[in-house]
Amino acid sequence: MTELYLNGEFLPLEDGRISVEDRGFQFGDGVYEVLRSYQGKIFRLSEHLDRLERSLAFLQVPLPEPRERLVAACQRLLSGLGNATIYLQVTRGAAPRAHAFPADARPTFLAYARPFRPDPADRTWTLLSLTDDRWAHCDVKTICLLPNALAKQKAVQAGCDEALFVREDGTVTEGCTTNAFLARGGMLWTHPANHRILHGITRAVVLELARALRIPVLERMFTLRDVYEADECFMTGTGIQAMAVLAVDGRRIGEGTMGPLTRRICNAFDDLVRRELFLREAARA
Amino acid sequence: MTELYLNGEFLPLEDGRISVEDRGFQFGDGVYEVLRSYQGKIFRLSEHLDRLERSLAFLQVPLPEPRERLVAACQRLLSGLGNATIYLQVTRGAAPRAHAFPADARPTFLAYARPFRPDPADRTWTLLSLTDDRWAHCDVKTICLLPNALAKQKAVQAGCDEALFVREDGTVTEGCTTNAFLARGGMLWTHPANHRILHGITRAVVLELARALRIPVLERMFTLRDVYEADECFMTGTGIQAMAVLAVDGRRIGEGTMGPLTRRICNAFDDLVRRELFLREAARA
Repeated sequence: MTELYLNGEFLPLEDGRISVEDRGFQFGDGVYEVLRSYQGKIFRLSEHLDRLERSLAFLQVPLPEPRERLVAACQRLLSGLGNATIYLQVTRGAAPRAHAFPADARPTFLAYARPFRPDPADRTWTLLSLTDDRWAHCDVKTICLLPNALAKQKAVQAGCDEALFVREDGTVTEGCTTNAFLARGGMLWTHPANHRILHGITRAVVLELARALRIPVLERMFTLRDVYEADECFMTGTGIQAMAVLAVDGRRIGEGTMGPLTRRICNAFDDLVRRELFLREAARA
Repeated sequence: MTELYLNGEFLPLEDGRISVEDRGFQFGDGVYEVLRSYQGKIFRLSEHLDRLERSLAFLQVPLPEPRERLVAACQRLLSGLGNATIYLQVTRGAAPRAHAFPADARPTFLAYARPFRPDPADRTWTLLSLTDDRWAHCDVKTICLLPNALAKQKAVQAGCDEALFVREDGTVTEGCTTNAFLARGGMLWTHPANHRILHGITRAVVLELARALRIPVLERMFTLRDVYEADECFMTGTGIQAMAVLAVDGRRIGEGTMGPLTRRICNAFDDLVRRELFLREAARA
């Protein structure tokens, strides 16, 4: 049974119900986070909660509970689960339908954890490029995810694992649920962290790892042609960490296998998780 | 007590609950309509249901029930209410969270009616212009309304009634919940019905009325400067019909009162409603 934390109470997920007048349901007026745990420990928890607070600030919705209580709830949801993802969602709450903010809505807050499916052995993906038709604030992690859901579905229907969004001006932004990285001439390229992409926690970790590995990184715009001609391409996200991209639109990227830079990043990522979540604690013990 | 129709059953609105895993709640994966009744009769019902079906087709969600059953439910919701708005919403339904479409979700369908507040005597509005930061498919009536809600709130906080969206290229598109019309030199201007605006049922009615009144209409793009310099401006929507705009960004439009063309449209609108909903029936009786 999956346990749900909903507005201060624990109950079975299948009993979790919200009002049909919740503004999350009628206006997409809410934000979310997805966290990842390794053997019960949450990776980069404060970064996720910081981003949650930034998203909420954009909507002018208060954090529904103090961080300590949110964290305690997440810890309880994780009990018995080893590797898991935790889904958190906050909406402005229920109110009679009208676009402007209601005077007295109480935010809806919910969280639940699900076991993380074992990583696929090969950690590789294929992508389908699609027009980035989203709104202008993709850095805010809102639940208005219809464009992302429609793009993911198109990718899956085309036999791919993920979409790659390309704006009308030809620049590649990111995936539906992931950030995009290229390797070219020994350097990594990724879209600048502006309002056109989600500021991925995993993206920031990869930038950190690249610095430590002395791999130069350019936060710059690039085109689909740059992707086709890249030595390597990989996508990053909280669940998947990094996935090597073997092909985009049916065109092979680089050698069509996980390339050396991607592999170094993946290995360094695993090391970092171990160091951050387990060795430090062992050192303290 | 407001009555709710939810997935085939009638219940009090305050008891209306949906799963926290409904894709309307987690992805904004749904569409809606707002209908208007006059003395219990729904205006332009088939046009609204046609648009609902077009929105659903974009999402690849089936109409959850035959039109006759939807209409019967609406009629029952209206009983005892004279002038009312009916809110209809359809989502893809509940499923474990994943962006791509679930194989076996059953759409969620709900509808409820609320008395329509008496029209303000003066039927005038003031507007605040704001950047149109929405996605590229504003012709699809989805519940991903966060950009509209945020804009409406900004307008209200600035002491205005509605926002007026202006795209980065300087063209004015529409309001948060309304379409925009200008009168200049005896002609009406309104944004073409492309993917940048909602194809308002009321907008179409106004075009019809203008033709009957021999008022020339240009479906063309226009700028904020065109609005400031217009003889008249009005906004249209299912609830409000047409509202004269007295000022935009604090600048008086035309004479700063309801202008003659707007008044002709408003009067013709009232006549049309009477003719279409009441006189025809009287003629048949």
